[in-house]
Amino acid sequence: MAAEEAVRAQAETVRRLKQDKADPDEIAKEVTKLLEMKAQLGADEGKQKFVLKTPKGTRDFGPKEMAIRERAFKAIISCFKRHGAEVIDTPVFELKETLTGKYGEDSKLIYDLKDQGGELLSLRYDLTVPFARYLAMNKITNIKRYHIAKVYRRDNPAMTRGRYREFYQCDFDIAGQFDPMIPDAECLKIVHEILNDLQLGDFVIKVNDRRILDGMFAVCGVPDSKFRTICSSVDKLDKMPWEEVRSEMVGEKGLSPEAADRIGEYVQLHGGLDLIERLLQDPKLSQNKLAKEGLGDMKLLFEYLTLFGITGKISFDLSLARGLDYYTGVIFEAVLLQQENEHVEEPVSVGSVAGGGRYDGLVGMFDPKGRKVPCVGVSIGIERIFSILEQRLEASEEKVRTTETQVLVASAQKKLLEERLKLISELWDAGIKAEMLYKKNPKLLNQLQYCEDTGIPLVAIVGEQELKDGVVKLRIVATREEVSVPRESLVEEIRIRTSQC
Amino acid sequence: MAAEEAVRAQAETVRRLKQDKADPDEIAKEVTKLLEMKAQLGADEGKQKFVLKTPKGTRDFGPKEMAIRERAFKAIISCFKRHGAEVIDTPVFELKETLTGKYGEDSKLIYDLKDQGGELLSLRYDLTVPFARYLAMNKITNIKRYHIAKVYRRDNPAMTRGRYREFYQCDFDIAGQFDPMIPDAECLKIVHEILNDLQLGDFVIKVNDRRILDGMFAVCGVPDSKFRTICSSVDKLDKMPWEEVRSEMVGEKGLSPEAADRIGEYVQLHGGLDLIERLLQDPKLSQNKLAKEGLGDMKLLFEYLTLFGITGKISFDLSLARGLDYYTGVIFEAVLLQQENEHVEEPVSVGSVAGGGRYDGLVGMFDPKGRKVPCVGVSIGIERIFSILEQRLEASEEKVRTTETQVLVASAQKKLLEERLKLISELWDAGIKAEMLYKKNPKLLNQLQYCEDTGIPLVAIVGEQELKDGVVKLRIVATREEVSVPRESLVEEIRIRTSQC
Repeated sequence: MAAEEAVRAQAETVRRLKQDKADPDEIAKEVTKLLEMKAQLGADEGKQKFVLKTPKGTRDFGPKEMAIRERAFKAIISCFKRHGAEVIDTPVFELKETLTGKYGEDSKLIYDLKDQGGELLSLRYDLTVPFARYLAMNKITNIKRYHIAKVYRRDNPAMTRGRYREFYQCDFDIAGQFDPMIPDAECLKIVHEILNDLQLGDFVIKVNDRRILDGMFAVCGVPDSKFRTICSSVDKLDKMPWEEVRSEMVGEKGLSPEAADRIGEYVQLHGGLDLIERLLQDPKLSQNKLAKEGLGDMKLLFEYLTLFGITGKISFDLSLARGLDYYTGVIFEAVLLQQENEHVEEPVSVGSVAGGGRYDGLVGMFDPKGRKVPCVGVSIGIERIFSILEQRLEASEEKVRTTETQVLVASAQKKLLEERLKLISELWDAGIKAEMLYKKNPKLLNQLQYCEDTGIPLVAIVGEQELKDGVVKLRIVATREEVSVPRESLVEEIRIRTSQC
Repeated sequence: MAAEEAVRAQAETVRRLKQDKADPDEIAKEVTKLLEMKAQLGADEGKQKFVLKTPKGTRDFGPKEMAIRERAFKAIISCFKRHGAEVIDTPVFELKETLTGKYGEDSKLIYDLKDQGGELLSLRYDLTVPFARYLAMNKITNIKRYHIAKVYRRDNPAMTRGRYREFYQCDFDIAGQFDPMIPDAECLKIVHEILNDLQLGDFVIKVNDRRILDGMFAVCGVPDSKFRTICSSVDKLDKMPWEEVRSEMVGEKGLSPEAADRIGEYVQLHGGLDLIERLLQDPKLSQNKLAKEGLGDMKLLFEYLTLFGITGKISFDLSLARGLDYYTGVIFEAVLLQQENEHVEEPVSVGSVAGGGRYDGLVGMFDPKGRKVPCVGVSIGIERIFSILEQRLEASEEKVRTTETQVLVASAQKKLLEERLKLISELWDAGIKAEMLYKKNPKLLNQLQYCEDTGIPLVAIVGEQELKDGVVKLRIVATREEVSVPRESLVEEIRIRTSQC
């Protein structure tokens, strides 16, 4: 109230100044002050009001969005199962120390829980670190599993582009000591299968190797201590032009301009087996042990991908870095390409939809004796995919059913609630998906309209005559045809007529 | 290190005092000090050690547990779909103020997130309050939905009995203005169907009504202001004997002993339609408007449940209270009964597996204009059910498959990795669930053993002779039978042989 009175007093001051034809500058000054006070008052009132919303960067999924989500999950899960994966689940939060030191510069995005006495906890940032913790804790050295769950990042949300603070990851990982590049190739095959299956349009899977990057940094003259931070800079090349990345390297991170320029030459390279062969002959890179190992494995990977018949969508790309600290070998990222216009030569990348790589050291970070379990895995970034599927569905005007109800139990006359309850109970007990309106005496028209609105294909109508005759009138909503069905064969009749559902 | 040196110095002090035969009291004082310092040092060391565990009250689900979990979910989801429910999802956290004032004495169990700048957030405590927030926010006045997700309570975990801090709820709710007790009866039918379907043994669904409770409190002489807190005491009757509950009411909550004794008489009552009729004639209760309304609706509910044929498992029980603040009408809770011994007369209750009720005021708490949306719903407490299914499976020694793989692609000779990769790629592309060992030259015995261990029913064996002949040798693991299949009909052959999977 004090604030409101102050605003009123200030308004009176302004009014008097105007009345007195005072200095315009003075009037302007007092008007500005008045506006500020009003804005402040409004903000305070806003704070006290209850805000009806979901937290920043999150959203609800209504029935329609869920129907789309289920479709995408179905494609992804059936691919994971096709490749023989088991499934696990872990808690949504972990001990804070479990996540410490795993994410490099991204650690600041981790959500912590309030200290309410007891353990210090954080929401999981991805599914990879919990997976590694799970392996170490249970001394598992050999598993192929998938895990579909929400992860949490205090990032700047860009929800129209499918970037949220709470979002799903769909992870498939292979852990175990195996012959080189066989599981790695399978991960890329999986990405290829899923993106094909979801029909999201053209895509490319960029591939690189941390050892090639580190070797490249070494031969370019980057000091060992700066490998990770320079790697983070390279990781920004998909969002920033080289000139900006270069100035971050030199200005912020103190790299010599010569080293930066040498990196600049490498990171513009991309290609296939031919590029790998060329770099294996590169006078500098071929002298570096790490780079040579990485290039050798990259060659083997491309041989396996050739057998899988998918090299057409794979690009060995030296600018691919991926920010996370834990990768040790192959890394990859799938991006959708949008042909903005048929005449445009280069397709435009519209964002990453899958990524992953090899992380042979992560499990060892959790094992008391440091025992390593080599791992490679892929994470499907499903939110971006939802956005595309949602937009496409909206454009197509296809009507999405959000229930699977086969039949509505209805009545044509009044006072038949008890009969409807008896019939629907019989249907439920026989496994039929059935609904009724929760009214004592609903109008037939309203009952039929409900079927039209929700896509229920059949109506089972009970009436006094039907009860006497021991039959039910079954109406086919689409054709408006009505047939009289003996009560004892109603279940079978409904099954037959909805068998394609 | 400083702390360790201090301990050494203190030990030296004690040694000298003993050597000098000093005053025993002084020695004792210094010894105590030494012990305290040592304990402190030990505690500090403990803190520095990394603990490999999940947070208190949470657990991982490995592949076997997930297989069991999926079975239970399947039964529950198919029931919800049979009743025509849509599905929604909401974020794992809500604005803190969304949860404020909804849970009565249980609010202290809510997990808060750390204030990292921005909104104050809490993990959801149940799925009901987020559902009400969703309805109010989207101005939905009419929906039947289910929601299966994890909720969070900082309770004392009792994990062997299936009580966790992170646990699943499976909720089904009907929102909308309908004729009395029709949706309420459907919720009870759903509980009945699910518990029957899961075959968890004998159960009873206790039913009561908040209006009957409040009417009872009024006629027993409980002051209005004490209704909620006395209701919380009554809620403990399933875990505590009446004498303890009574002394909490009288001692802690300041209720008169006479009022408590009058409550004591009512809360021992349970029965069916007969009890409802009797209470409708009760000279005190029948004079109370609320109780009379509640009893009238309870009668109607039992009529509908009779039509559903499920009254045999329903008990109208005046001791059922349920702690949550938001209930306004019918409340219910399903408990499993364990016949400890055939000769025991009264079956023992082994805990609640489902609960719910009517909450007509909750949505209005979120609506800016207080518009109400009547709701009734049920929540299946799945963790307790998992525990039972897990124990049962362990006892049965049934082998649970954790993958769905149909065929292992194997080779009998060396140097056939490329051929295995080519064949498995063909199978994946045809939608066959296939695996191979990630070895260049695996032994046939190891490949067959892998099938035995994981339950894969078929092995597709490539060998040099088969490659020449354009065939694949298909081995049926169970019978050890081997057939030669032309490569072009392999997919079809695998489909036929695994069609029952």
